[in-house]
Amino acid sequence: MVNPVDTRTLQWLSEQYYDLNGTHYDILEKPPSAIEFSRLVHMSRPAVIKGFDFPALRCWLDEYLIQKMGDQAISVAVTPNGRADAVTLGPQEKLYFVEPHTEQMTMHELLSKLDQSRTDALFSGSSDDYRETLYLQSQNGNLYSAPYFQSPNSDLSTANQACEFEALRSDVPSEVTWCSEAFGRSPDAVNIWIGDRNSVTSIHNDPYENIYTVVRGVKHFTLLPPTEGWCLEERTYPHAKYARDTSTSLLAIVPSSDSEPIRWSSIANPQLSGMLAPQAHPIRISLHAGETLYLPAGWWHHVCQGEEEVQEPDKDFLNAVPDGKTIAINWWYDMEGRGMGWVWYAFLRGGDVPDGNQADLNEN
Amino acid sequence: MVNPVDTRTLQWLSEQYYDLNGTHYDILEKPPSAIEFSRLVHMSRPAVIKGFDFPALRCWLDEYLIQKMGDQAISVAVTPNGRADAVTLGPQEKLYFVEPHTEQMTMHELLSKLDQSRTDALFSGSSDDYRETLYLQSQNGNLYSAPYFQSPNSDLSTANQACEFEALRSDVPSEVTWCSEAFGRSPDAVNIWIGDRNSVTSIHNDPYENIYTVVRGVKHFTLLPPTEGWCLEERTYPHAKYARDTSTSLLAIVPSSDSEPIRWSSIANPQLSGMLAPQAHPIRISLHAGETLYLPAGWWHHVCQGEEEVQEPDKDFLNAVPDGKTIAINWWYDMEGRGMGWVWYAFLRGGDVPDGNQADLNEN
Repeated sequence: MVNPVDTRTLQWLSEQYYDLNGTHYDILEKPPSAIEFSRLVHMSRPAVIKGFDFPALRCWLDEYLIQKMGDQAISVAVTPNGRADAVTLGPQEKLYFVEPHTEQMTMHELLSKLDQSRTDALFSGSSDDYRETLYLQSQNGNLYSAPYFQSPNSDLSTANQACEFEALRSDVPSEVTWCSEAFGRSPDAVNIWIGDRNSVTSIHNDPYENIYTVVRGVKHFTLLPPTEGWCLEERTYPHAKYARDTSTSLLAIVPSSDSEPIRWSSIANPQLSGMLAPQAHPIRISLHAGETLYLPAGWWHHVCQGEEEVQEPDKDFLNAVPDGKTIAINWWYDMEGRGMGWVWYAFLRGGDVPDGNQADLNEN
Repeated sequence: MVNPVDTRTLQWLSEQYYDLNGTHYDILEKPPSAIEFSRLVHMSRPAVIKGFDFPALRCWLDEYLIQKMGDQAISVAVTPNGRADAVTLGPQEKLYFVEPHTEQMTMHELLSKLDQSRTDALFSGSSDDYRETLYLQSQNGNLYSAPYFQSPNSDLSTANQACEFEALRSDVPSEVTWCSEAFGRSPDAVNIWIGDRNSVTSIHNDPYENIYTVVRGVKHFTLLPPTEGWCLEERTYPHAKYARDTSTSLLAIVPSSDSEPIRWSSIANPQLSGMLAPQAHPIRISLHAGETLYLPAGWWHHVCQGEEEVQEPDKDFLNAVPDGKTIAINWWYDMEGRGMGWVWYAFLRGGDVPDGNQADLNEN
């Protein structure tokens, strides 16, 4: 059925939603009980949660990570500009949705290169120097994925052997107990993210409930409710990937011949004033080490990371060593597939129904 | 802002919703935990819950109710046709939204008149005889109302003194624990309903989460999801009330001079085949004594009641005495006022924003 949604309708909805909710978000001083979290999920507003503690928050210093991970190869996204999975100018002055190049390296190599990149930037005379950006953002359940939750005790399973970060699992719980109980299910994927201020995640939304904890550094989120997606001017872009040119060793954008066009926001940086329609009401949240964001399914998010000036060492968390790196963990849970959730999600994107997750249509 | 919703959009939404959810509803063999119920609320689909037990289910026989209530006057709705709060043909062949006449009587009088009405119907030669219908349906929190929850221990409060059914409170819990915990609040109103097969509740929806338990008899619900409201052809009708004509003693429709017109469905009986658009997918649920319906906020419902042929006495519940009366209790909880709930509710009614319940717009 053809997209039945006109912009006037979407404008009305976003206006009503803003009138009712403003830009408020809850800040919880300690993790909620399952039932308290369940109420947050029903409301579907972001919330910052303090005090959700797990071992990684205490021990993930560089030396520890390097020692634990040893020679294990890990997959790292490489771009010339820090903009992986983003709309970028490519061949023939055309805009493409460009995926990053992926390279294998050890944790030691990754962390050293991030350090080197920071040193280079500090001492470089020009900001225009070509410097590649590394971002560990494989986001495929790199810490725990669906096969793990299907057989968590089978250590020798193919799924577990394929996990690049198995050595770090003891520092991160596979489930957030108050989430799993509220949703009535295990996560779909748990990911580790390591990057620096050069990496940016372009604005998009996911059909997942997202629990996002910063372990080191700080993440800056720009959030828009699902109702304000129409302000993001989604367009369809041909798909491309960065690939390393064998003669120059530089990264180049290579259009894909076998991929469908990708629908993506054409607002490259919603943080800049004037980039968003005045009807958009972004919520800006800086999430520090030890803080957790509940990012409800369907919420639009742009994420960058930075280093803050730490006045005095923070004894509680690893910001005691502000070296420009940001490390985070996220847990993705499938959103509720029954009821209105999927329908609204599709409607607010102009009638684009997402694949999969269809509930059984058993009649009583 | 002007209603921005066109019917094509509403049709698309209801089609998508039906494709995803069908007419499925859960049947729970025992009451859910708070967290299980919270998931049901988030899904916003009806559910039948068995085994929610409280004293009324065991003891509300006529003799008991008469003895307990004694001379206490109670407010009973009276209509010539059993259709209180419904669209009815009135003066000058015009349609009105007509509220019932209210009369005071004792519990003994109410139950006797319901018995008499049944006897008359069984032995009457004609079904056209003028017989008034009594329905205890004051639905103003007649058992527990907001002032009770604000000061439940102040027995001498005006609110409690004004409660016609205080004598029955010990048989009905003021709160459903798994609901109050899931919603994080007490009910807004708890009501007792007593009627017979002559009483019908015309189709409408409420901005309340509703927990509805049948104590005696059977209730027949016809439910439509919030998305199918457009099939109900809501119109605006002048307001009227039944009043007793002093000369004839008959009930007559008297148009109100000081009431706003009422928006109401023009489908008098959605149970009859052909009355609803083919795009509507009603869910029909017969709720028996001892069963509880979770009716999510915004769901459309038409309710009638009846007596079932009881093959052999049901020893568990009061259907052991099938005398045509249906008694029920309902708990209304405010729906979540933050997030998208209100906005969708208004949108699906064509952009008609309900009053009140606006969340604070505090900015963080």
